[in-house]
Amino acid sequence: MKDLAIGIDIGATFTKIGITDKEGNILTESSISTDKHDKIEPYLSELYEKISNDLKKIENTTNLIGIGVGAPNGNYHKGTIENPPNLRWKGIIPFTDLMKKYFNDLPVFLTNDANAAAMGENIFGAGKNMKNFVMITLGTGLGGGIIIDDKLYYGHDGFAGELGHINVKKNGRVCGCGKRGCLETYVSATGIRRTIYELLSQETTDSELRNISFNQLTAKMITEAAEKGDKIALEAFEITGASLGKALADIVVILSPEAFFLFGGLTNAGDFLLKPTRKHFENNLMPIFKNKIKILPSGLQDKNIAILGASAMVWSALAKY
Amino acid sequence: MKDLAIGIDIGATFTKIGITDKEGNILTESSISTDKHDKIEPYLSELYEKISNDLKKIENTTNLIGIGVGAPNGNYHKGTIENPPNLRWKGIIPFTDLMKKYFNDLPVFLTNDANAAAMGENIFGAGKNMKNFVMITLGTGLGGGIIIDDKLYYGHDGFAGELGHINVKKNGRVCGCGKRGCLETYVSATGIRRTIYELLSQETTDSELRNISFNQLTAKMITEAAEKGDKIALEAFEITGASLGKALADIVVILSPEAFFLFGGLTNAGDFLLKPTRKHFENNLMPIFKNKIKILPSGLQDKNIAILGASAMVWSALAKY
Repeated sequence: MKDLAIGIDIGATFTKIGITDKEGNILTESSISTDKHDKIEPYLSELYEKISNDLKKIENTTNLIGIGVGAPNGNYHKGTIENPPNLRWKGIIPFTDLMKKYFNDLPVFLTNDANAAAMGENIFGAGKNMKNFVMITLGTGLGGGIIIDDKLYYGHDGFAGELGHINVKKNGRVCGCGKRGCLETYVSATGIRRTIYELLSQETTDSELRNISFNQLTAKMITEAAEKGDKIALEAFEITGASLGKALADIVVILSPEAFFLFGGLTNAGDFLLKPTRKHFENNLMPIFKNKIKILPSGLQDKNIAILGASAMVWSALAKY
Repeated sequence: MKDLAIGIDIGATFTKIGITDKEGNILTESSISTDKHDKIEPYLSELYEKISNDLKKIENTTNLIGIGVGAPNGNYHKGTIENPPNLRWKGIIPFTDLMKKYFNDLPVFLTNDANAAAMGENIFGAGKNMKNFVMITLGTGLGGGIIIDDKLYYGHDGFAGELGHINVKKNGRVCGCGKRGCLETYVSATGIRRTIYELLSQETTDSELRNISFNQLTAKMITEAAEKGDKIALEAFEITGASLGKALADIVVILSPEAFFLFGGLTNAGDFLLKPTRKHFENNLMPIFKNKIKILPSGLQDKNIAILGASAMVWSALAKY
């Protein structure tokens, strides 16, 4: 009998589902719509059907040992999704309890997407041989997952690692969390778009980005413009890397990690982002930490880290790995 | 046979020595001069003699199980004191190895003073029933000790918790570490003195502190002035509390602790410091953390936390407690 775990990644639009083995292979991949239902029950029954179908595709000498779920505002301790700003389900959803009803009390684990990514990196990725590192996910927002002594660190109430909400500017940009000046308002796919628009407003430099509306603008377009030498795009990466590098230098004096891993859409910009990040990181480091700490792209950049990470919670918690 | 541990607190001027039991009682207290010898060997032989004398004062049905040492720039992993700025011994001193020669290979543990304080709070103080908290020591500098899952967190290379070196101001005050704008240049006994002098230079408000030189000025004098309603002193506490409160709010999104404990000379200012700290802390917290996290004076305020903390390393490491 081969042990299998299911990894589920709940995004605002799609929910991705993968059946994985403990070597980190994804045996099946499928998805359903997240935003079709405004109630959780019909969504769960659709999810259950999809998973049942996927399981039928696999040889029947297998043993499903658990389900791991990465979701926005997922609380590991309580198994709840709490007031997710980008999902249609409101309030506090007892997600793991509901899932267990469908899956005969199979163990179900839930955490937020950045924590799941950190778990994936720790069990299957470049963090395999490290005991203390920090995962930074750069998508619509900036998420963090902290690995301490080879385990994900949740903190006292399950919300450790909210690195996107470190304050980096007094009276800075308005953030979705209700504060101002949070790191993710500068460093994320949305953050760099805001920086582009700030630069376009302040400078007169010509740029192909002047033809694109805020809502149309993507991190990919900014990278493509930078590749063509667009000065506004290059300046935006420099500014974004400076903000990120300085914030990581502050995290170092607190956590003394071995490495940072970067993951998510914005990291596809490669050196446009990494070079200024590393430069400003080293320049702002407390001397005892200089030239010791790596900033690396995720070792699972090309794989589905969200699914692997979610399933990694199962392997880790059930110590079958 | 009653188990005992020795706690040693190495300060710039004095080294304090205490024989402790596992209930947190200090059975003997003594001290020697730290700065009398510019070489480590004569210092150690004096320390050995003092401890031998202290042990003779105790009933002889006891069993010494280990020695814990808190020292500036103490590296737990290596047992070394590394380039301590305020001690006369230079370079990297293999402190625990040297100590073991005198004490027949008894277990010797070393860490920095703030980490030792965190251990003391965790084992003997108000952090006894908490698993995740942060200790802040406010002396000449600002030190930090992080308790994660009931253990002191050292990080990848033993230097986690250097909270005094979080950057709080771009191009801010020069810090002893070689950077600018570090938290401890604003929040510490030295930091508030610098703030007083900045205020005296910027404002024309009358203040009794105008009669005191920088080198004479102490945190105690500032507290006494505040008690008499001195406006400059009151403003300095407000500014210091604001810097500390904001920095603690940023630490929260990373670590999600249950509480912060404050210890050290500056905390004797009581509400002059605590009130603005708590106010600015709550105002700057990410909403999900509001009204959840305590900022408390150390539960060992009146006891010798440095000695208890150093000895706590022994109890904790040898799991006799």
